[in-house]
Amino acid sequence: MRRVVNIKSAMLILLIAIIALPLKNKAQQVNDPAIDAKVNALVKQMTLEEKVGQMAQVSIESLGKIRNGNFVFDQDTFKKAVIQYKIGSILNTPGLQNAQQWNNIIQEIQNAAKQTRLKIPVLYGLDDNHGVNYVAGATLFPQEIGQAATWNPELIYNAGVITAYESRAASVPWTYSPVLDLGTNPQWPRIWEDYGEDPYLSSRMGVAFVHGVQDPLGSKDKLVVSLKHYMGYSDPKSGHDRTDAWIPENYLREYHLPAFRACVDANARTVMVNSALINGIPTHINKHVLTDILKDELGFTGFTVSDWQDIENVYRRDHITKDIKGAIMLAINAGIDMSMIPYNYKEFCTDLIALVKEGKVSMSRINDAVTRILRVKEELKLFETPMTYLKDYPKFGSAEFEKASYNTAAESITLLKNSNNVLPLPKTARVLVTGPNANSMRTLNGGWTYTWQGERTDEYAQKYNTILEAVQNKFGPTNVLYERGVSYNTAGKYYEDSIVDMDAAVKAAANVDYILLCIGENNYTETPGNLNDLTLSHNQLLLAKAMIKTGKPVIFILNEGRPRIFNEVESAAAAVIDVYLPSNFGGDALADILTGDVNPSGKLPITYSRFTNALATYIHKPSEGDGNPQGGDFYPQYQFGFGLSYTSFEYSNLSVNKNVFSPGDTATIHVTVKNSGNRDGKEVVELFASDLVASLTPDVKRLRGFEKIDLKAGESKTVTFRLPMKDLAYVNSNNKTELEAGDFKLQVANLNASFSVNKTVIY
Amino acid sequence: MRRVVNIKSAMLILLIAIIALPLKNKAQQVNDPAIDAKVNALVKQMTLEEKVGQMAQVSIESLGKIRNGNFVFDQDTFKKAVIQYKIGSILNTPGLQNAQQWNNIIQEIQNAAKQTRLKIPVLYGLDDNHGVNYVAGATLFPQEIGQAATWNPELIYNAGVITAYESRAASVPWTYSPVLDLGTNPQWPRIWEDYGEDPYLSSRMGVAFVHGVQDPLGSKDKLVVSLKHYMGYSDPKSGHDRTDAWIPENYLREYHLPAFRACVDANARTVMVNSALINGIPTHINKHVLTDILKDELGFTGFTVSDWQDIENVYRRDHITKDIKGAIMLAINAGIDMSMIPYNYKEFCTDLIALVKEGKVSMSRINDAVTRILRVKEELKLFETPMTYLKDYPKFGSAEFEKASYNTAAESITLLKNSNNVLPLPKTARVLVTGPNANSMRTLNGGWTYTWQGERTDEYAQKYNTILEAVQNKFGPTNVLYERGVSYNTAGKYYEDSIVDMDAAVKAAANVDYILLCIGENNYTETPGNLNDLTLSHNQLLLAKAMIKTGKPVIFILNEGRPRIFNEVESAAAAVIDVYLPSNFGGDALADILTGDVNPSGKLPITYSRFTNALATYIHKPSEGDGNPQGGDFYPQYQFGFGLSYTSFEYSNLSVNKNVFSPGDTATIHVTVKNSGNRDGKEVVELFASDLVASLTPDVKRLRGFEKIDLKAGESKTVTFRLPMKDLAYVNSNNKTELEAGDFKLQVANLNASFSVNKTVIY
Repeated sequence: MRRVVNIKSAMLILLIAIIALPLKNKAQQVNDPAIDAKVNALVKQMTLEEKVGQMAQVSIESLGKIRNGNFVFDQDTFKKAVIQYKIGSILNTPGLQNAQQWNNIIQEIQNAAKQTRLKIPVLYGLDDNHGVNYVAGATLFPQEIGQAATWNPELIYNAGVITAYESRAASVPWTYSPVLDLGTNPQWPRIWEDYGEDPYLSSRMGVAFVHGVQDPLGSKDKLVVSLKHYMGYSDPKSGHDRTDAWIPENYLREYHLPAFRACVDANARTVMVNSALINGIPTHINKHVLTDILKDELGFTGFTVSDWQDIENVYRRDHITKDIKGAIMLAINAGIDMSMIPYNYKEFCTDLIALVKEGKVSMSRINDAVTRILRVKEELKLFETPMTYLKDYPKFGSAEFEKASYNTAAESITLLKNSNNVLPLPKTARVLVTGPNANSMRTLNGGWTYTWQGERTDEYAQKYNTILEAVQNKFGPTNVLYERGVSYNTAGKYYEDSIVDMDAAVKAAANVDYILLCIGENNYTETPGNLNDLTLSHNQLLLAKAMIKTGKPVIFILNEGRPRIFNEVESAAAAVIDVYLPSNFGGDALADILTGDVNPSGKLPITYSRFTNALATYIHKPSEGDGNPQGGDFYPQYQFGFGLSYTSFEYSNLSVNKNVFSPGDTATIHVTVKNSGNRDGKEVVELFASDLVASLTPDVKRLRGFEKIDLKAGESKTVTFRLPMKDLAYVNSNNKTELEAGDFKLQVANLNASFSVNKTVIY
Repeated sequence: MRRVVNIKSAMLILLIAIIALPLKNKAQQVNDPAIDAKVNALVKQMTLEEKVGQMAQVSIESLGKIRNGNFVFDQDTFKKAVIQYKIGSILNTPGLQNAQQWNNIIQEIQNAAKQTRLKIPVLYGLDDNHGVNYVAGATLFPQEIGQAATWNPELIYNAGVITAYESRAASVPWTYSPVLDLGTNPQWPRIWEDYGEDPYLSSRMGVAFVHGVQDPLGSKDKLVVSLKHYMGYSDPKSGHDRTDAWIPENYLREYHLPAFRACVDANARTVMVNSALINGIPTHINKHVLTDILKDELGFTGFTVSDWQDIENVYRRDHITKDIKGAIMLAINAGIDMSMIPYNYKEFCTDLIALVKEGKVSMSRINDAVTRILRVKEELKLFETPMTYLKDYPKFGSAEFEKASYNTAAESITLLKNSNNVLPLPKTARVLVTGPNANSMRTLNGGWTYTWQGERTDEYAQKYNTILEAVQNKFGPTNVLYERGVSYNTAGKYYEDSIVDMDAAVKAAANVDYILLCIGENNYTETPGNLNDLTLSHNQLLLAKAMIKTGKPVIFILNEGRPRIFNEVESAAAAVIDVYLPSNFGGDALADILTGDVNPSGKLPITYSRFTNALATYIHKPSEGDGNPQGGDFYPQYQFGFGLSYTSFEYSNLSVNKNVFSPGDTATIHVTVKNSGNRDGKEVVELFASDLVASLTPDVKRLRGFEKIDLKAGESKTVTFRLPMKDLAYVNSNNKTELEAGDFKLQVANLNASFSVNKTVIY
């Protein structure tokens, strides 16, 4: 595990990669010529049937089932798929299996693949949304929204390293992560699966993760990533999952493309496609997005994979074609290389073969797709080493890895309010723990945990501490009372809950000094997570009011995937802590923060909205903001980038090295930060820039740099940012990246600086 | 008033116009060559200063003030503007004046204009949102949302006729109406000012109004309209007024353009421009929208006028230019012909003159703008007859006109729920009237009533009946109790209210048979109308719950500009009636409906949402609807087009004359409707069509025809629709209108029919 330990050098590589993040409109991933030669030779030997097989991916549940705890293939079905149809890829969990069981499953698959004429190994893929969450015993991390709240790419790089290592322990060389969707719409049920609402923050975090997972490509403890869900998936007009987004191309490029571009530049090898539609066109048939932009403009040489059943959805859901065959034709011609079918692969293979024979899909398109898929298999060295084994990965699920998860959780948790410094609590405090999220491993983890919706986490993660258990450990069991107050329903919709023992909770409050109100959401993902009202549930608001009425200080613990609106009671909260979905060590990390053993340093990676119908993000236009003379209003509950500490930081001496820059210049910006309190602490230094005048109404401000620093009490540091002028460019109405001459403003904390650019450039 | 009485022939013209509504992408309004010759000769004589003066419009408040009830010009300021700067147009109300006072104001303006070298009359314009609402004593109509709810274009035509007549009585020849914004976003505070969410319904209503106001152009009882706000204004991403909308061009054309196109085809003479931005570009500088589409493609030969201060907003609000001069250059070059400045006209004139001299705005652009403005002045015959006088308009404010307003209100009011046929009420019923909207002329009228925000309506409209007064008149004062329960605050935000006498209301309920709960909104418009939560106010929900708890049947009267969410209490309502903003006769019309003297026939022109974060409209994609296998959900409180009657209607025999049509064909569709109840009634027969498969995911259904019919109890009628195939075309991803070969479904009430189109055509 050299790569885990040797963070410094890895970070150097990462830093170079980030600095090199180009705005260039033409790029090219660099292939290994030896691999390309091998792949080309192999493709030449292949029949059409063999090629089409490589482009097909099936789900493992269609090939067998769990018996007595072990997954068992139905041999006829299995061999038909792998040997007869020569399926190139398999995915998904058949039900929770441990790493050894996964070794057995993959071994059987690769053995079958060896019985095919060309012996091409099968590429297995899993959704590792927060660690290898479909392998029992693996190390789970906070969900991406929490990872982003750390504002610490080093932690995310490390999560990538561990994810890759543990996935290889389970023989799986392909992860469907990171999620790079832009979390701008809290109505969308997957906002917690991504790195927040800012393109720059998402790019930094995504690139760190890609490097952690992939580099060096071909190593036995590395995987290939799948950037998802390319692109524009996250902001459907209806707010509901897998529906149409209205995004003009300039905004698609300005906001949604950058994180994908950055990660393609970091050599991401596969890309999973947006399940939904943009401007009425399912992304799976959007040639402009898949081929013109991704493959031609960004120079992506890996392969694209559809999302779940999404070629079929072009026909069945979106009514674009009158049969599946028509959908296959449009999708493959648009640039889909592999179809996550996931069940009826025969129809896909038969139809695609027919389409080629009918001249409706060209052989060159097929060859291109297969070349891309085989290139990745070669890059992974799957031909030489189709298997990896648990025994070679001794650190799987180790304490060292668990500590990395804890650290990530501890840096993610975000203190949003702390009236009269009520926190940290004395260790002798008597505490009432209440609320539906108080004693649940399920809610700490969210969806994509052991199962798709994560509904069995309390069973599978028993050994970890819920918030209640961690608080009991910290304050001593006799000092901690517990009453649920409200409980999530076990049947029905995920967002339904019931009042349980609220009177008992009120009564218990009389015997404590503080109330920890653990509220938020039960878990969900994808379309089952659709929600019609962002307000915190009625019952939880009632519980909050009942607790406030006791007169005891109420500390709100928000454990939720998206900002649930609680403005009605926020002003009465003594303190507010957002833990997001911190996973298995989230309870412990929270307890350490409550007592001050850890000083909180998380910052919101999203805007926390105050009202259900005022969901603008920090990236908004002057017309939408306070500066609108006709009455704009932007006053979220908490701002993007906000988070308190138990110490205080003072900023001074913001400077920029020139007054006037040429477009090719890079500004050097210094700012001094002092820990002016009496406690050590970490601070995220955030650099925002504003384009004061632009031909397309400029965003009020944009994050253009950040650095997380560690300051002892009383210590000062000077932070340096290097800001290339081209980073200040925007996408104009012609969809071109343009840096316009004119004045810019920088903002770091409460400090401002100004400069100007002396020439307009279109990239 | 031949045009008022002679509705039949006018409707024939209208019908022909509607049938002729083309989908053609190139059109041309037809000018009178004699007028063009006169205008061209005049323009040739004009100095640059005179031309620029014609392009400038100022607000009357900047030229004087009200003294002792009469508007008095500040002579120096006034003469400087009209004589020295030769301002071409003046707008707005200086404070409420009656028709005679308006005669005096306009006379003084035209007298001053005669002192200029070329004696070009000034064009005065007013916002007649629902009748001539800035002239005391004029006839006010329901706001447009209510007009649309009638689904009766004849009533809207008539409202246009009366508006024109009464405006001419006040000497004003130009109206800033109709509003053609598409009411798809209830978060937007102006949804009540338009004809609802459907492009076809909006087109039909808009065209009827344009004909009513304009035809025949040049008549002394006609005006020119200003279609507003061209285009895409109504669906800002933030939900707030005058902010950026994300609308790709295909959807801009599919949804927002049709009503403007239809009204340009109906020869609308002026167009007011969208105050906000589309995809980051203020519409005031959007040459593609203003010139390419409106002037070139639609062939509009009238003139465009900016909205209030909106050239300045390009600079000040949107940060597109670094000064006003830059904004003027962009706007004039984009196609703005007249600038509603509205105060600092000297800066506009000076800057524009300088821009022409500097070659930054061409003289041909100036000549084009001035030609368009003078053409309209000529078409209005303002040169010959700059003045009209109240004395020549004896029907101003007459009982006949008031009856037209009453009829419109009566046909607009929409019965949304009627459990166990609780309505109509017996005339002997004892009724408690309660709620903040019960005794308010202000809330019956909404904004744009006597003043901009309509805050003085209770003073100005005293002679009309509030709901309470009308109900007292109907049921007898002794049978009617009144308690407010909740009252709107007189200071602060329009949406703030307070609990007042709620206990008294509960007590009063014991003594009545029914409760009329009059709830909704206080009035507002534009940015002051921004709202952060669509839920009905907390206090009004409390009042509703208190009334429900009494056990007496509660009849909800919704008096509001937009659907305020009340799902929490809806199931407990005995009946629900939406009166929208029915204006001065709304109370009377409601009382007649309550007793059954009028059988309700209004239908919702919008989708009434059930939840704050589920705002999809009836026009949505399959992925957003019930048909989405991955979990779409569309279940509004009440559907678009829905509305109950006191009688019942049975539909039968839906037929279409062929199974297969060519693109040039027109289908003939019949359906039989029977009044199967025992009460006479009006029914809106609504024809929806669905494109079952299309290359851009098709809308689940679209309104393609409607007819409102009157049926005696027991009577049957067969309704015929003629549906040109080209009406089924959609705007494809290349922004071209395309009719694709394939299958279509028709739907009328519970009946379906099918046919197919045999060939694809791109128009």
